Amino acid sequence: MRDFLPADKSRRERVLAVIRERYRAHGFDEIETPVMEDYDRLHAGLGGDNEKLSFSILKRGMDAEGIRAAADDPADLADLGLRYDLTVPLARFYATHRSQLPAVFRAIQIAPVWRAERPQKGRYRQFVQCDIDIIGDATSRAEAELMVASLDVLDALGLTGGVIRVNDRRALDAMLEVFGFAADERAGVLITIDKLDKIGPAGVVAELRDRGVSAAAVDAFAAFVDRPATTPSFDDAGIRAALPDGIPDDVVAHLVALGETVAAARGDEAPLVFDPFLVRGMGYYTGTIFELAHPSVDYSLGGGGRYDGMIGRFLGQQAPAVGFSIGFERIVDLLPDAAPKGERSVVLVHDRDVALAPLLSLKAHLVAGGARVRVEQRAKNMKALLERSAADGYTSFATVGADTTAETLELKPLA
Amino acid sequence: MRDFLPADKSRRERVLAVIRERYRAHGFDEIETPVMEDYDRLHAGLGGDNEKLSFSILKRGMDAEGIRAAADDPADLADLGLRYDLTVPLARFYATHRSQLPAVFRAIQIAPVWRAERPQKGRYRQFVQCDIDIIGDATSRAEAELMVASLDVLDALGLTGGVIRVNDRRALDAMLEVFGFAADERAGVLITIDKLDKIGPAGVVAELRDRGVSAAAVDAFAAFVDRPATTPSFDDAGIRAALPDGIPDDVVAHLVALGETVAAARGDEAPLVFDPFLVRGMGYYTGTIFELAHPSVDYSLGGGGRYDGMIGRFLGQQAPAVGFSIGFERIVDLLPDAAPKGERSVVLVHDRDVALAPLLSLKAHLVAGGARVRVEQRAKNMKALLERSAADGYTSFATVGADTTAETLELKPLA
Repeated sequence: MRDFLPADKSRRERVLAVIRERYRAHGFDEIETPVMEDYDRLHAGLGGDNEKLSFSILKRGMDAEGIRAAADDPADLADLGLRYDLTVPLARFYATHRSQLPAVFRAIQIAPVWRAERPQKGRYRQFVQCDIDIIGDATSRAEAELMVASLDVLDALGLTGGVIRVNDRRALDAMLEVFGFAADERAGVLITIDKLDKIGPAGVVAELRDRGVSAAAVDAFAAFVDRPATTPSFDDAGIRAALPDGIPDDVVAHLVALGETVAAARGDEAPLVFDPFLVRGMGYYTGTIFELAHPSVDYSLGGGGRYDGMIGRFLGQQAPAVGFSIGFERIVDLLPDAAPKGERSVVLVHDRDVALAPLLSLKAHLVAGGARVRVEQRAKNMKALLERSAADGYTSFATVGADTTAETLELKPLA
Repeated sequence: MRDFLPADKSRRERVLAVIRERYRAHGFDEIETPVMEDYDRLHAGLGGDNEKLSFSILKRGMDAEGIRAAADDPADLADLGLRYDLTVPLARFYATHRSQLPAVFRAIQIAPVWRAERPQKGRYRQFVQCDIDIIGDATSRAEAELMVASLDVLDALGLTGGVIRVNDRRALDAMLEVFGFAADERAGVLITIDKLDKIGPAGVVAELRDRGVSAAAVDAFAAFVDRPATTPSFDDAGIRAALPDGIPDDVVAHLVALGETVAAARGDEAPLVFDPFLVRGMGYYTGTIFELAHPSVDYSLGGGGRYDGMIGRFLGQQAPAVGFSIGFERIVDLLPDAAPKGERSVVLVHDRDVALAPLLSLKAHLVAGGARVRVEQRAKNMKALLERSAADGYTSFATVGADTTAETLELKPLA
């Protein structure tokens, strides 16, 4: 868990303001849920491995007897927990408030989540997730709206050139069936295929053979993955060429419509790449899955997919849903530390004998004129004071003596 | 704990943006700390009664034996807790990062805190606190900067006419000494005087007599509080007139300088009222104390004071500090639900047969033109759809048929 000092916090808030503003423009509505959810809800099997990483809240007012009675089942010690993602709270929120929400609900959630991971570089126990979800729309318009809005966020942050890798869980499943993997082998096979970026095709084939799954199916997979590499176009011909024969037409049609819609909205070629081996870990995905990439980095800047089954488990009736989580922490790290563009800022350096009233009157005068103003008493080491002011994002300074007035105040640029 | 639906969340974020922007203009720097602090730090005696309301985080990986061993001291079950205020985290933050902060550090913290209160109207277990603090300035400039910035926040939110009630713990203490209360009686006497607004002078005098404290001192207090009411001017004469004789000159001088400084910064009479019976509960205040009031409501919209001792307990050396907490939750409740001023927003209502690509192209066209856009499929009950769109803050709509283009799109106002 981290403290954020002023420069970091200011950068984070600037990025959040852009994300909020752009998603809002695209018709998404921000909601907020409490950081704590019921313990049982957090451990209902919807959180995958994250459930094990959940922080639990000790029940209030337990006595010694109650604690001893709970010794064999620590779950009895806790009634609440900190959320480990924003998807479980969204499903609970939607089930609770559905009657007050539009038929197609486009949600923004920007909030911290907690996971009790072992401390390691780049992993934090508290971090901000930034999710958009569309509930109630089964068409590829939903995926297209998520993608177009998220590409717009990247553009607005100066990260133009974003690309989205796309696949579909149904295509993956059909592909494994075509290769000849048995239904009960497929979940394990997907775990191995998910490592393709890390261990390469040969590594995947070797691990599949170690798994002891159908050898003929592994041969079929090996032959398919060894084909000459192409970068297929994101259209009917391109998507079919990237897949073995035998993928259902409706799956391909959903993807093709998605590509056309994103292209129309972007007014250009869609920055989508079909990747038949993209898996994404979470078990709850049921259709389209996708990851946001940017040429400046070799890791993903976000990802998501369709999870049509999950909301229904809370709601008691089916509701199609698709979500995208933009990698807020990664994006913040990519952006420069500069002060907001065009911000006017002044450090007023005053002599010790300047009275408080005229000093704060000068400050108020500059603030009313639209500037950000810090007051500092003159220091022995003025060079250090001015350097620190510049490092803190201030762009100009003025010295204030006993006789200085708004008229005689002279602003000088900070180096 | 509450869910926030879109209209509430949007209003909260608008208020937060104004608070951030105004405090930042006045030279305050926002920081952020993790929601969890060490259990021991949260129970070190600095949080007053709030320590008992702290939510504790269960240690991870406890086995049955460990739980049984902890039965007699539940504190052994927890290593972390959720913060109940932002002052303990600030003190810890300042002690950790002081070398990277300016000599006078002006902090903004806007963040949730948690208290395990019994559920009751108007009390929440999770709520946002919004604190500004100045560490490293012992002069009344610090109080003046807090007050001027906070009045500016109210002005920017449309809540002009804010007034600040001011007192000083040293003046209170001197006053009780003048009346003749013994040193060990004064803490209890203050608890009773703090009820003056609720139970009136006669109630306070009666409760003081019940306390069994020095009867002559209670008589002196009763005579003083029974004087004809005046609204004293916030200057040397006015403040002295509101107090019994025998208050130290330096305490009065600190208050007078504060009034002059706020007046100079506001370019007007200072909206300060001296209240010799203002107490404020927290034990850690050492000097000036104050509460923000507004003519539209009969409760306080925030408060704060000087707490010169507390940072020192973390730092190992003294550091003067003064803080103000603006009542974010109360202020949000006072403000209207309207959409941001000047926001252009459009609901695109499309026929079922409109293809996705041209539809999202129209949406993108409007978004690029600066509008907020929601897409809705035509409903049987169009009146309900349009009413809900207006309730959600949208100001115009357009219907989209198969042939509609950007050129033929016709925006109509939503009632």
